[in-house]
Amino acid sequence: MSAPRLLQIDASIQGDRSVSRSLTKQAAERWLAAHPGGEVVHRDLVADPLPHLGPDHLLARAVPAEQQTPAQREAYALSKTLVDEIKAADAIVLGLPIYNFGAPSTVKAWVDHVVFPGLSTDPAGGEGLLAGKQLIVLESRGGGYAPGTPREGWDHGEAWLPHGLALTGMETRFVIAELTLADVNPAMEHLRELAAESLAAARAEVDALWEAVPA
Amino acid sequence: MSAPRLLQIDASIQGDRSVSRSLTKQAAERWLAAHPGGEVVHRDLVADPLPHLGPDHLLARAVPAEQQTPAQREAYALSKTLVDEIKAADAIVLGLPIYNFGAPSTVKAWVDHVVFPGLSTDPAGGEGLLAGKQLIVLESRGGGYAPGTPREGWDHGEAWLPHGLALTGMETRFVIAELTLADVNPAMEHLRELAAESLAAARAEVDALWEAVPA
Repeated sequence: MSAPRLLQIDASIQGDRSVSRSLTKQAAERWLAAHPGGEVVHRDLVADPLPHLGPDHLLARAVPAEQQTPAQREAYALSKTLVDEIKAADAIVLGLPIYNFGAPSTVKAWVDHVVFPGLSTDPAGGEGLLAGKQLIVLESRGGGYAPGTPREGWDHGEAWLPHGLALTGMETRFVIAELTLADVNPAMEHLRELAAESLAAARAEVDALWEAVPA
Repeated sequence: MSAPRLLQIDASIQGDRSVSRSLTKQAAERWLAAHPGGEVVHRDLVADPLPHLGPDHLLARAVPAEQQTPAQREAYALSKTLVDEIKAADAIVLGLPIYNFGAPSTVKAWVDHVVFPGLSTDPAGGEGLLAGKQLIVLESRGGGYAPGTPREGWDHGEAWLPHGLALTGMETRFVIAELTLADVNPAMEHLRELAAESLAAARAEVDALWEAVPA
């Protein structure tokens, strides 16, 4: 039996100042505490950006393997690598920052490569081949988009991601820290307390994701 | 007085089979007919992909010009080029396909580079510096997402883009051809007539975008 595995995916461009990266780091520590001997596989979409979906990736989905060009074979191999990472993981966390009211382009590219008929989706339209896999999304967003706020519904990352992955059968669970810009934006100074509460709640939720193994 | 200019932006990876590219091509022809002597500037986000937003692009927004590294200066220059293209255009069309229920990552990257305090947005939070510019979005989507359909609200490209550009002051106008997968997906065969109607309506709308100059 192989060691349990966590797939940790990061997308923030803020490095050490990133809230979403601090949440995935906390989750990885928490997961390791609950799974001694476990292995964390780290995919950093900023350090190693995936290419935008292009014509070769599209053709790799249509051209039979034995007729593919090297570029098409490479496109297929990239999707297979990403899907295999998901399949091999016992738990998956994605740190999701929101830029310009949507997911980073790196995360969109990741989804576009993961969704691949025959690898992650059923070409016949049946249940997705990643059914049973849960993606734990640790999201950080600069503003607040709750009902009644001026920008209600402007978090298009949270709205889109479950649909973007739907054909694969993967399900998403969100843990969200919001108003993270309150600390750096003077105009949001009055929201700092709310921001701190949101972050504390997210941290508590991450702590509760996996029960610690009894000593 | 300089010649009138159309900025044509394309993002489809389908080449000659693309519906959104056929719509931007039609729009460019229509615009040229109405603006003899006009110039079309073409930005192809597939032939010349923009990089994902990264740490250097973020720092280019914060580090004073005289202290920037070459990579940060390059990041600034890229945003300035894209914003200047918009400023210099009398009309702008974007061909927007929808992949996995969202805008292509190339379009997200374009927005992420265009939104730049001091170039396109007011750092003080006032009106965007591209106010008065209209982005005509010629969208093609494979399915139908109207009220009452099983995937109502799943077009996150149309939902997000106006918000993604909001801080720049740019406004969007959508012309949409939908159900474009009906022609190639046997399960959608019964939707082919609706798809043809949708495309015909979009083409008529594009034809009416600019009045022809009287002979």
